[in-house]
Amino acid sequence: MFISGRDYRESLKRYRPRVYVNGDLVGSVADEPRLGAGVNAVALTYDYALREELTPLMRGGSAGSVNRMLAVPSTSEDLLNKLEAVRLVCQETGCAQPYLGGDAFAAIRSATAQMDADLATDYRARFEAYAESAWAEDLAIGIAMTDGKGDRSERPHAQANPDVYLHIAARRTDGIVLRGVKAIVTGAPYMHELLVMPCRNMPEADRDFAVCCAVPIDARGMTIVSRPAGRSGEAAARFSGRYGQATAVVVFEDVFVPWDRVFLAGEWQHSGAFTYNYATHHRHTCIAARAGFGDLLIGAGALMTEANGIDLDRAGNLQESMVELIKIVEGFFACGVAASTYCHVDGAGVAVPDPVFANVGKLLLATQIYDMHRLAHHVSGGLVVALPGPDEDHNPATYGKLSELLAARSDIPYDRRIEVARFIEDLTASNQAGWYSLISLHGGGSPEAMKMEIWRNYPLGSKVDLVERLLERGVLADGRRAITRNRQPGRCCAEGCMVPLPEAAPLTLKK
Amino acid sequence: MFISGRDYRESLKRYRPRVYVNGDLVGSVADEPRLGAGVNAVALTYDYALREELTPLMRGGSAGSVNRMLAVPSTSEDLLNKLEAVRLVCQETGCAQPYLGGDAFAAIRSATAQMDADLATDYRARFEAYAESAWAEDLAIGIAMTDGKGDRSERPHAQANPDVYLHIAARRTDGIVLRGVKAIVTGAPYMHELLVMPCRNMPEADRDFAVCCAVPIDARGMTIVSRPAGRSGEAAARFSGRYGQATAVVVFEDVFVPWDRVFLAGEWQHSGAFTYNYATHHRHTCIAARAGFGDLLIGAGALMTEANGIDLDRAGNLQESMVELIKIVEGFFACGVAASTYCHVDGAGVAVPDPVFANVGKLLLATQIYDMHRLAHHVSGGLVVALPGPDEDHNPATYGKLSELLAARSDIPYDRRIEVARFIEDLTASNQAGWYSLISLHGGGSPEAMKMEIWRNYPLGSKVDLVERLLERGVLADGRRAITRNRQPGRCCAEGCMVPLPEAAPLTLKK
Amino acid sequence: MFISGRDYRESLKRYRPRVYVNGDLVGSVADEPRLGAGVNAVALTYDYALREELTPLMRGGSAGSVNRMLAVPSTSEDLLNKLEAVRLVCQETGCAQPYLGGDAFAAIRSATAQMDADLATDYRARFEAYAESAWAEDLAIGIAMTDGKGDRSERPHAQANPDVYLHIAARRTDGIVLRGVKAIVTGAPYMHELLVMPCRNMPEADRDFAVCCAVPIDARGMTIVSRPAGRSGEAAARFSGRYGQATAVVVFEDVFVPWDRVFLAGEWQHSGAFTYNYATHHRHTCIAARAGFGDLLIGAGALMTEANGIDLDRAGNLQESMVELIKIVEGFFACGVAASTYCHVDGAGVAVPDPVFANVGKLLLATQIYDMHRLAHHVSGGLVVALPGPDEDHNPATYGKLSELLAARSDIPYDRRIEVARFIEDLTASNQAGWYSLISLHGGGSPEAMKMEIWRNYPLGSKVDLVERLLERGVLADGRRAITRNRQPGRCCAEGCMVPLPEAAPLTLKK
Amino acid sequence: MFISGRDYRESLKRYRPRVYVNGDLVGSVADEPRLGAGVNAVALTYDYALREELTPLMRGGSAGSVNRMLAVPSTSEDLLNKLEAVRLVCQETGCAQPYLGGDAFAAIRSATAQMDADLATDYRARFEAYAESAWAEDLAIGIAMTDGKGDRSERPHAQANPDVYLHIAARRTDGIVLRGVKAIVTGAPYMHELLVMPCRNMPEADRDFAVCCAVPIDARGMTIVSRPAGRSGEAAARFSGRYGQATAVVVFEDVFVPWDRVFLAGEWQHSGAFTYNYATHHRHTCIAARAGFGDLLIGAGALMTEANGIDLDRAGNLQESMVELIKIVEGFFACGVAASTYCHVDGAGVAVPDPVFANVGKLLLATQIYDMHRLAHHVSGGLVVALPGPDEDHNPATYGKLSELLAARSDIPYDRRIEVARFIEDLTASNQAGWYSLISLHGGGSPEAMKMEIWRNYPLGSKVDLVERLLERGVLADGRRAITRNRQPGRCCAEGCMVPLPEAAPLTLKK
Repeated sequence: MFISGRDYRESLKRYRPRVYVNGDLVGSVADEPRLGAGVNAVALTYDYALREELTPLMRGGSAGSVNRMLAVPSTSEDLLNKLEAVRLVCQETGCAQPYLGGDAFAAIRSATAQMDADLATDYRARFEAYAESAWAEDLAIGIAMTDGKGDRSERPHAQANPDVYLHIAARRTDGIVLRGVKAIVTGAPYMHELLVMPCRNMPEADRDFAVCCAVPIDARGMTIVSRPAGRSGEAAARFSGRYGQATAVVVFEDVFVPWDRVFLAGEWQHSGAFTYNYATHHRHTCIAARAGFGDLLIGAGALMTEANGIDLDRAGNLQESMVELIKIVEGFFACGVAASTYCHVDGAGVAVPDPVFANVGKLLLATQIYDMHRLAHHVSGGLVVALPGPDEDHNPATYGKLSELLAARSDIPYDRRIEVARFIEDLTASNQAGWYSLISLHGGGSPEAMKMEIWRNYPLGSKVDLVERLLERGVLADGRRAITRNRQPGRCCAEGCMVPLPEAAPLTLKK
Repeated sequence: MFISGRDYRESLKRYRPRVYVNGDLVGSVADEPRLGAGVNAVALTYDYALREELTPLMRGGSAGSVNRMLAVPSTSEDLLNKLEAVRLVCQETGCAQPYLGGDAFAAIRSATAQMDADLATDYRARFEAYAESAWAEDLAIGIAMTDGKGDRSERPHAQANPDVYLHIAARRTDGIVLRGVKAIVTGAPYMHELLVMPCRNMPEADRDFAVCCAVPIDARGMTIVSRPAGRSGEAAARFSGRYGQATAVVVFEDVFVPWDRVFLAGEWQHSGAFTYNYATHHRHTCIAARAGFGDLLIGAGALMTEANGIDLDRAGNLQESMVELIKIVEGFFACGVAASTYCHVDGAGVAVPDPVFANVGKLLLATQIYDMHRLAHHVSGGLVVALPGPDEDHNPATYGKLSELLAARSDIPYDRRIEVARFIEDLTASNQAGWYSLISLHGGGSPEAMKMEIWRNYPLGSKVDLVERLLERGVLADGRRAITRNRQPGRCCAEGCMVPLPEAAPLTLKK
Repeated sequence: MFISGRDYRESLKRYRPRVYVNGDLVGSVADEPRLGAGVNAVALTYDYALREELTPLMRGGSAGSVNRMLAVPSTSEDLLNKLEAVRLVCQETGCAQPYLGGDAFAAIRSATAQMDADLATDYRARFEAYAESAWAEDLAIGIAMTDGKGDRSERPHAQANPDVYLHIAARRTDGIVLRGVKAIVTGAPYMHELLVMPCRNMPEADRDFAVCCAVPIDARGMTIVSRPAGRSGEAAARFSGRYGQATAVVVFEDVFVPWDRVFLAGEWQHSGAFTYNYATHHRHTCIAARAGFGDLLIGAGALMTEANGIDLDRAGNLQESMVELIKIVEGFFACGVAASTYCHVDGAGVAVPDPVFANVGKLLLATQIYDMHRLAHHVSGGLVVALPGPDEDHNPATYGKLSELLAARSDIPYDRRIEVARFIEDLTASNQAGWYSLISLHGGGSPEAMKMEIWRNYPLGSKVDLVERLLERGVLADGRRAITRNRQPGRCCAEGCMVPLPEAAPLTLKK
Repeated sequence: MFISGRDYRESLKRYRPRVYVNGDLVGSVADEPRLGAGVNAVALTYDYALREELTPLMRGGSAGSVNRMLAVPSTSEDLLNKLEAVRLVCQETGCAQPYLGGDAFAAIRSATAQMDADLATDYRARFEAYAESAWAEDLAIGIAMTDGKGDRSERPHAQANPDVYLHIAARRTDGIVLRGVKAIVTGAPYMHELLVMPCRNMPEADRDFAVCCAVPIDARGMTIVSRPAGRSGEAAARFSGRYGQATAVVVFEDVFVPWDRVFLAGEWQHSGAFTYNYATHHRHTCIAARAGFGDLLIGAGALMTEANGIDLDRAGNLQESMVELIKIVEGFFACGVAASTYCHVDGAGVAVPDPVFANVGKLLLATQIYDMHRLAHHVSGGLVVALPGPDEDHNPATYGKLSELLAARSDIPYDRRIEVARFIEDLTASNQAGWYSLISLHGGGSPEAMKMEIWRNYPLGSKVDLVERLLERGVLADGRRAITRNRQPGRCCAEGCMVPLPEAAPLTLKK
């Protein structure tokens, strides 16, 4: 089913979540001005799926019956279309949010299938039933993954206060009881449900912390402490006054979850699979999201130069910065494309992006978001933070004079020039800009997490084999092979030329 | 004379400037909450000059009788001490502001001396008299340099509306009349006077735009349209709620300036000397100012990791980022030191920082401020933008639970951890952080201006000579020398080894 | 037809090119030691096409009947396979060379088809006949594109000596006569034929310089002045002693070319199409070639650390450098993949890589090759340039002692450790290493050329539209749209969501 | 005493070292062609000290009686002059080598003074006597510091073969006996003496490895296995055919050293002081050395563009690269200047460069040498590695034609253009270029060593204090102070403003 943005807004009124924003209890999420920008961003993902011309991008799943944001990719094409779709909605809204649900669905399908195979459980069937109902209702689903973490030098079970990590406080015949806290939950107040996910690999001692399940947003015992979404209501916020994201801390005080909504409950050996599968999918979509943000900077930077009276075709140094900005954005987007093209379809039928490309792309955007700000600032000029604020627009004592004196080109009125400047300021020099930077750097895992995944997944052994072969012998005296890890054949692999390339990866290469 | 910060606040009440902040007319600058953070920052520069132990740094001029912020350096040591002094006040306040006055005083002394020599004018005496009185009253002096600029493809005199550049509208027997606009005037509302400076080299057609003079802040006909200073009054603004900077547009509608306050009035050939001399001094001090800002990031980043329960001596990747941050800050500060050590003392007795080193340092900070933010974010972690805001601190329904669940180390209470996080957020992820970035990039000239100065001043010809000599002949068939520009002997110069190094530069090298 | 490497060596003996290497006239190219490394590299591309398991990669064209190096891609899959094939042969040989022929074939097919359509010529049929015969004989074809260029401030026809650019000196009924010089011709001595290509867009005055044709390597009047291939015969050259590339200057002194080998002869308006089409294909393949070189550095760097007795899993800073190296290599390779996935098939049936992605990838490798050297040096350690050279290995007075004292791990003998060190030194610190750097930076066009193509092809207008739409009105007072260039709909395009995405691009997205 | 370069060459004949170059025993070092470039470079440092006009730079010590290369700095001015002197001789020779002796002398003076104070030994007097005689004879002294190191996971005493580290094999009444190996000894064959230095801090178990002493180059039992110096004798080596550096492995087989030449012999607690003091001085001088190399690239790059017919004042993108190159070179040189200006004079009267600035500068050059190559390549163009080699110059069949066709500007003959190209190729794309890169990266310690020193020396605690003060309380609940390490007052230090700045550092600041 596809509901509209209006339907989505209405649907929020059917829930009664306990939400605080800046210390105030929120009566109706749909009507709370400080959450409006977030609701707007989610609503757009619903409306776009109803647009005829966007159908190939915005609808996925079998028979195109599911909003792309929540669909599980099963082919390389699905991943490419998901990438395009996320870029599209994020270039409209900065960050559209509900695609995290799709990332989690893909991860849970793969992880439960493996768990069933290893432990003879029936988690996958439970998850599929849940997913079908979510798709049927076209839900917006948030992800509660990052725990509070407490003292970082201790593991979950060893914390002085165990509630700093979310865990199973009790097991009942009809379900489990959750206690603890999740932090940095994107868009929490205006989601229909939250998917609780484990945030790391768990050893046996931490088995109670290995939990994945779905919780309605107004589950009893759950409290959402949220920041406002974007800069709702700020006059100077030309973009993030309309579209934004709320980030919340979610406190669980004995929240009950029935078994049919539980997809991991103590099987600690499989905890990492949930975490890492999600990470791979989510880093892939992060690439698209930040490319959409990059599109806003590219367009706004070009527009600002025009409003300043500069011709980019002639201003070599500003053109150079524009090209640098494009290079960064399309450079990391290319990693998302390559991760899609070189995906593999796992045993559960999920198309998993290539982890090396996905992590390289996320790593590039995480660090280069700062360069993107720098380049946007460079082309825009220093006036961006020096022009009078919007309150001055209504000051009869100054407005007339300012609009004469601060105009640039005769065909671009002052009020239009200043509007572009405020748009840039909002995107790159406001607290919202800071949020985009920090979320790009740390969201979906910090740079170290990406580097670890690249290291873990790279076929290093194959490259070593290549060199040992070219040297005509190994380096070890006893004939053992050097650096035995990751000697998988396949893509870009020296050993690959000795044996047939595997059928499965990359699927699209052979005719 | 040295007045105190309290004296300074009182003194502001003796002026009646026409100031608007966010559309509101300000009754008393000293009492306006939205300007408080700026007044605080300036006040600190007064108080520090009264501290006994800071005397060597904070006092300059002959006999140490002038606040270092407004003193004209006459030796290499003066420049080094100015660098230290500016770093000191900026690490307390983010950006202390009044040192721009000293940069301008140095530039005007040099430029008027040269002008008098060339044109037999008496500008220098006028300026020295003015400076003496400013020192006697211990004034805070702002700089009005950047014009509105209008259509950037046209020169000042060719603009449709000539008022987009400040200019001499009339010459009277007793003085000149100014009309036009200056933008990006730092700290304008709470200065005692503004120094009007030309912002570029002027050809003859732009002679009316070649003007330098001093104007009291409440001169008749002058209107100051200002943004608030910092984030005065915002609870989350742990730093910039207390210290900040106002940036203003200043409109001149027939402002009269008597001759004894005029230091350039149409001598277009000398306009560039005012601009470039100021730029060299100001880029030198910018280096110190941003190093002070860097100190805040270094300290806050280290404190945040401790509050997160991380030991930097063991966390290799975070230590690496700390070292990178230190490398950036001390790397560009070193350029300020080198520019001081290799200064030259000009004909007017002014110690002028080496322009290559000064511009390299400013160029490094202008682009690396973004990396500084990235590194501070990296060591601080993602919670910085996800923790509840200050309004939540007073919510009895959530505070107790949050303070339990979001604490890290047992010996660091939640409210102290969150305070550090808000300090970092304020400095690196707020609108104030955006201001620091943009001002670092474009303030004192955009990167292109620095590159042009490096190119203009570098002894390229000497390096070419070196290579031609090593090749044992020139490249040109007719025996001319290649690339004749900038073949000055001296520092690091191949030709330097053929002839005695000049006595004058660098002064400190010979015993 | 597919010939073997041995066949290729034999075939060279059927040609009598006039080749000089280091001042000596070469009697037999196939037997010249100084060209041996180049011949080896080309031979490998023949042998690999005969390997059963590599068939999908190494054979292209319709029915897989053509060596991938010389095939014209007609689908996205063809481009992906070409990318893999070039990476494969270059990771064995450093740079395999004959793929330039395929790049040119693709460009000429597209350009002649367009020329025929515009000018009613019959060039395409001529080219296809020529290509069929080249494929039938499985030729190795070099590209003669870069002219001598003379005085860079003058266009070709205005040069004092017109021969600094290759041009048509005479037109005869049976063909054309060429005179002039081409520089930087890769692998020239050991190719079967050279394809002459124009190196820039030509205005009418330069019409005689607009020429494309095929010339056998031993055409009368053609002289090849070549550098040795790699470091043939140098004992220390563990890699480039075996595989390398010759770079030659080719002088044309009245070389006659019959009409059936001429594909452009004065149609100056189409000159640019030859150049730019070739550039797009060639930048795409350069990406693969340098990724293969990167594989060598990755493998050798890891092997060197092992030979030094270091465990990369524990040495955080070296592991970090390895990940950085992987990030660079896979980061630019991803751009090649994305350029393939987002290709478009033009009117002549040629699959053309997306120019933005292809140019971003080439630009990334051009500048980052230096970082790749740095990282390989970092992980390898300083001994690489300090260990005794190979002549010392045969010194009975020192060898025994050195092999005891300079061993690292007990299970890795000195002679094997030193061999890896020499391999790294050869790849990263020899004159061959310098060649790889400079060719990466300038080959296929300097960085400026890539930046210009990115700028020319990027849909900037669409991003501006996006922002104007979000601002709810344009910036221009008269309702015109800002920045009208490149408003093409399609990929990543705001306007794209208003209209159906075009059928053609990207082909692979829709099921 | 000051000897001339000719005297130095003669003096070499008075020694009979056992030297192998590429497997051959060298009869006379002074006459060995493969070492000629190294001898030339050292000779220049002697000749320059005899030039009247260079006296202030090239002579140091008390009364200017010592060659600056071997003098111990005692003031800030000494350090600045040493910096200039090293830059000067290295811009002539690439790397002049004997300044390592001066770095060691400074380190040994400080370390022996401290040792005498702690242990009541008389090492300093011994060293001063030795130094006086070295100065009297104007010796060239090399440094043997880096051991073979063997298995890097084990400490010296735990190695299977203890000889992989140099150590005291026996103690006699008249002296000590050395056994083992030192690697990467710069310029070893053509020095008069070698100073043996410890390469790390030693725990008690490694006491026999804690040794510092002076050994004549022809000491019995010492074998020097050297690489050739530069590219002596290669026609294409326009620079490094004349000036270069030999790197050697030195094997010690029971070498006897009398007590009056021993400055550390088992006092393991002081081993680190020798190492770290040397490192600080040497990183300071490395900065100057590589700045001299940078001058060669700057001059040659500019000359190449001129020879290519390009006007840098108009070619924006090449000018940009030139400025970037200057920015890098002067940026790290500035750190050397700042380290000199902020030196401290220790108890032994040695002026020690500030370790933070010295290490930042060395770290910058270590990684940016690669960027310097990239920029030099960018401005020079791709022909640098594609022009015919020098053997082709004598080929009558091709020379005439090539010199016509490959000329650029009419006033720059081909043979002069090609000479500049070969100069650039030699410096940036030859095996010598690789040597410069690797030595810059790893010489004087790898990047990790610099980062560790920055971390160890930075007053981090003071910056934390600053922030705690601004927050108005500490973060620790119990009132302890956070991050207590390195809370030294002084430069750039928050606490510094509370107490008088120390008298000692920086000396030059106060009048």
